Order: sequence, then structure tokens, then C-alpha cells
Amino acid sequence: MSNPACKACVGAWPRQDHLIADCGLTRAYLHDDQFFPGWTVLVLNRHATELFDLSRDERSNLIEEVSAVAGVLAGEWNAVKINYELLGNQLPHIHWHVIPRLPQDPAPLEPIWRITHEPVRLTPEALTCMVERLRTIWPAHLNHVRQSS
Amino acid sequence: MSNPACKACVGAWPRQDHLIADCGLTRAYLHDDQFFPGWTVLVLNRHATELFDLSRDERSNLIEEVSAVAGVLAGEWNAVKINYELLGNQLPHIHWHVIPRLPQDPAPLEPIWRITHEPVRLTPEALTCMVERLRTIWPAHLNHVRQSS
Repeated sequence: MSNPACKACVGAWPRQDHLIADCGLTRAYLHDDQFFPGWTVLVLNRHATELFDLSRDERSNLIEEVSAVAGVLAGEWNAVKINYELLGNQLPHIHWHVIPRLPQDPAPLEPIWRITHEPVRLTPEALTCMVERLRTIWPAHLNHVRQSS
Repeated sequence: MSNPACKACVGAWPRQDHLIADCGLTRAYLHDDQFFPGWTVLVLNRHATELFDLSRDERSNLIEEVSAVAGVLAGEWNAVKINYELLGNQLPHIHWHVIPRLPQDPAPLEPIWRITHEPVRLTPEALTCMVERLRTIWPAHLNHVRQSS
């Protein structure tokens, strides 16, 4: 199920060089703003907008992927807290922001959206390095290679 | 499992007059700021901080409750989109913000945290009316009466 008018469905977002892994139901990408280090986005592989548009099995598997990725990020960045956000106000294709909040967070009590900052874009080399690093610690069950891609 | 240092565990938050229902794993409360009408908070009945601290069954049941409540709110308020947020930066006890974004939203593309506003506190009469209204449409399977409460 794909929507030709949807940026996520046609592959225009997120950028493919930010792809960490195909987790099964979702693909995990580093967010292109790394002001919050480790900010990851989990994008549903098919088009759907709301949790209640999914089957029960899909919801269950989806939250397993979100939780497992959160665990990886928490461990890698020694996070104080993880923020999990499914918004879709701008792009109504299910995608989860999974954001580790670190000990050095500038405003640890606030949602990230209230923290004014210049986006941090990684250099191509730093991006590759971070993606490769995450792939080395990525759980095997969250690493599906699709024959079609 | 309860944490005596946690405001949610000791019943100091949310306010009990905002309680809509005990959904089973969580309790649903109207958020005390109704600037976004229907803003609801689902608070886990036991103390836990991260999704990965829960069992697989708990995660599955939790996302079922979040999804079902989202469906109720979407229908009642004719929402354009639902926002689902599990943050815990200020209170690290699992609670989900489930926020219907309505056609008349002042900034529909933005996360609510970016929308500067004076909080809207309902009068006691309006609060009771809204809670009672929601109870009349609340799904039976999300309405657990606890003998201990």
C-alpha cells in the first residue's frame, strides 16, 4: 500500500544516505538534524496515517520496533530519557521520532520542539560513520534485507 | 509496582476530577490544558519509565489502549490528525499525550509545544460535562472498574 502523493512513499524523504536499517515493518533513519545526537526516525514501510488504521498485529510489531530501537539508542548515547513521538502534522505517513535525551541536553525538561537551535547537519563522512556505527550494534532481528530494494 | 517519589504513583497528578476511565493498563484523563480540545493523557497504572522496561504483552496492550483512545477522540472531535507523544522529561512515569488536532487548529503543521498560548482551564461544570460526555461514548473494553479504588 503506497500513496503516490506521499513523500515517504515515493522515497523523497528521509534521505537514503541516512538509512540505518530496514527493521521489518519500518525503516530506521538518522534524522537530518543531529542537534539531539541519535535522533532517529522510524518510517512505516507502507502508507498509513493513524495507529487505528493498522491491524492489531501491525501495532504490536510496530511498538516492538520502536521499543527496540529506543533501547539501542539509549545504550549507545547513555540517554537519560527517550522521547517517542508520532505526529504526522506535516507528513501524515506514520513515522516515529525516537529521540535520546542526553545528560548534556540544554533543556532536559522541555520537549525538543521548544528548544530553539540551528539544525546540526552532519558532514557526509560523519554521517557515514554514525550510520555504520549503529549498524554494528543493531539487533539482528531488526535488520531485514529486502530483495526488492 | 509503585514509586513513592513519583507524582503519578502517589496520585498527585493528574487531578482525579479529570479521570475519564480506567482502560486496563492505563487510566485516561483529560489534560488540564484544553487549549487543544480533547487533549487526553493516558497514564500507566504501574510505575515504569521506558517502553523497553515493559514486557512485550504490556507494550502490545498499551499501544492498543493508546490507539483505541485516539480513535474515540478522533471521532468525537472530527480530528484532522492525532498526535501521540510519550515524553516523560518532567515526570518519568509512562504517560502518553494523545492530542486531536482539529480543523480550526491555529498552527496545524506544528507540534503543540511550539504553539504559544494561555492554558485553557475548564470550569468545574464544563470539565464534568466533557468527562461525562466521553464516558457515554467510551468503548466498554476500555472501562475497567477496579475493586480496589
